[in-house]
Amino acid sequence: MSRFWSPLVHNLTPYVPGEQPKIERLVKLNTNESPYGPSPKVLAAIASENTEQLRLYPDPDASALKQAIAQLHGLDPKQVFVGNGSDEVLAHIFLGLLKHDQPVLFPDITYSFYPVYCQLYGIESKTIPLNANFEIHIDDYLKLAKKNGGIIFPNPNAPTGRALLRAEIERLIQQNTDSVLVIDEAYVDYGTESCVSLLRDEAGMAACPNNLLVVHTLSKSRALAGLRVGFALGHPDLIAGLERVKNSFNSYPLGKLAQAGAIAAIEDQAHLEAMANKVKATRAGLMDKLNELGFETVPSSANFIFTRHPKYAGEKIYQALRERGIIVRHFNKNRIQDHLRITIGNDEQIKALILALQELIT
Amino acid sequence: MSRFWSPLVHNLTPYVPGEQPKIERLVKLNTNESPYGPSPKVLAAIASENTEQLRLYPDPDASALKQAIAQLHGLDPKQVFVGNGSDEVLAHIFLGLLKHDQPVLFPDITYSFYPVYCQLYGIESKTIPLNANFEIHIDDYLKLAKKNGGIIFPNPNAPTGRALLRAEIERLIQQNTDSVLVIDEAYVDYGTESCVSLLRDEAGMAACPNNLLVVHTLSKSRALAGLRVGFALGHPDLIAGLERVKNSFNSYPLGKLAQAGAIAAIEDQAHLEAMANKVKATRAGLMDKLNELGFETVPSSANFIFTRHPKYAGEKIYQALRERGIIVRHFNKNRIQDHLRITIGNDEQIKALILALQELIT
Repeated sequence: MSRFWSPLVHNLTPYVPGEQPKIERLVKLNTNESPYGPSPKVLAAIASENTEQLRLYPDPDASALKQAIAQLHGLDPKQVFVGNGSDEVLAHIFLGLLKHDQPVLFPDITYSFYPVYCQLYGIESKTIPLNANFEIHIDDYLKLAKKNGGIIFPNPNAPTGRALLRAEIERLIQQNTDSVLVIDEAYVDYGTESCVSLLRDEAGMAACPNNLLVVHTLSKSRALAGLRVGFALGHPDLIAGLERVKNSFNSYPLGKLAQAGAIAAIEDQAHLEAMANKVKATRAGLMDKLNELGFETVPSSANFIFTRHPKYAGEKIYQALRERGIIVRHFNKNRIQDHLRITIGNDEQIKALILALQELIT
Repeated sequence: MSRFWSPLVHNLTPYVPGEQPKIERLVKLNTNESPYGPSPKVLAAIASENTEQLRLYPDPDASALKQAIAQLHGLDPKQVFVGNGSDEVLAHIFLGLLKHDQPVLFPDITYSFYPVYCQLYGIESKTIPLNANFEIHIDDYLKLAKKNGGIIFPNPNAPTGRALLRAEIERLIQQNTDSVLVIDEAYVDYGTESCVSLLRDEAGMAACPNNLLVVHTLSKSRALAGLRVGFALGHPDLIAGLERVKNSFNSYPLGKLAQAGAIAAIEDQAHLEAMANKVKATRAGLMDKLNELGFETVPSSANFIFTRHPKYAGEKIYQALRERGIIVRHFNKNRIQDHLRITIGNDEQIKALILALQELIT
């Protein structure tokens, strides 16, 4: 505490990321990283960068990266905004597009960074409860179609892993025409219908909704959490607003190595798909085993599962796993304090997890 | 323009960085990059990173990097804040420490990102004119000692290159005790007395002023503009405030490669000193040549010089150099529209510059 802090700093409750322990041989299933490495082409691209050239500033517009992303998704580069991880992209979205007189809406159980951005930037918010099955009900948002300054949720949602059908999101975008709708697709590659297709049209950009943004990250399915790259896709006018904020914050958010590695990752869609398929197969096996042990698991479209055991407190299982060198995520939060969020690891990690749970659940 | 932009976005005038043209064989003297590459140890550190591990998030606290910086400067790691380039560090400083009821003070001619941060975050500001010799007068700030929400200026100042003595800054910090003083030392390694020594004391941290921050970048003297790393040094309570802002914005501003490269750069002080000495020698030679050509050059303590010719408009010289493939920086701004800011390049670049100027100035 210091009297020199800006008044807003005193009221912040910063986001607490899952820990990154410096212990070797840990079974780390707490931050939804990919259990498999990035495309070998990423490593080659980084290695072949002329590091002497690191003395020069990077391209402030990351235009080659925007071009690669646009090409992958069938969009125009003017529909692409990039940032230093999707957390930075989301921060700029909150300040640049969601700060209005009316409150921004998001689920009560969702990515816990959203209320933190609201605190940071003085944005009003209103949480909409998930139903008893942890589902987002679009009708709850439609009721507030004229009474919100923006809507944001992940699809699939986190930490639940539940996905909405694209048709439901289309219904929302068609009826909520007075504010921006942000779909955070951090985990979309593990079996959810993406909304990116809503941004393109054979007829050209005229058909792109002027108030839909889709956010992606390279930290999950592209296995580059350590490189820090994320992006948003949407109407060029929304992107232009984000560029104004970015250029009033940091002209060069992505270094040369991040740009080079990200381009290679975006261009290797085959690697992403192969790795995502392995994760989905492991997820199916883990769901079965948890079922046998009496866990109640939310259907997952993500690279993690959200589960509880009717006889054991979440905190207890979390601690017991931790003592065995297995780290999962536990949220000490209303409605979900008995749930655990478990990242889908590789086969060896999941085997260790199941063995530990078999010992604990008797 | 879009009706979905937050109201503040409409009023932003984003910072315009010096261009990064994609043309080969350009003599690029416009963005104050080092003409010499980074330490070979940086390149080795990046190359030896296990890129497979890029799948994992980096250390959100960059604790090894903070440790290296603290050790170099004789400080405690709790006195170190790191970010994605010093521009990001400055942005967090403006929001977290300079947003108060009273205006933040900075010179009328200085780093043009400062007023942009003020716009972005709705911070009142008041500019204090440099004197006719482009000098900062500490007494001008002392007159407003009780009437400011913070003070910030670079030392040496940019784009003038003029430095203040540390004793002058000590006088300011001793008398301006009710707000934070930020000294932006981006160019300090080219011959300016650093204020970092004011932050340490044999007696321990008790002697560190509770309202002084010193900002450094790895983009200039450490030749890593392409990697994006900057940091702030100051009292642990100020750093704690910045950490709250950072953790409400982006948990992981520095990727694994940036952290590894930055540590190696910080540890190779000998490389920095050798390169800075070369730049200073080149600067002295360039000053002499410009003098012979009739230019009036501000005394420089930076890796650039700020100069004008009494007979030629700044814009004219800028354009004529550009036609010859030499890019310098021209600011179309009151008081300095006839000046050019020229980065100290390598010998070959400076020779090309002098030849071109000899042709132009007849």
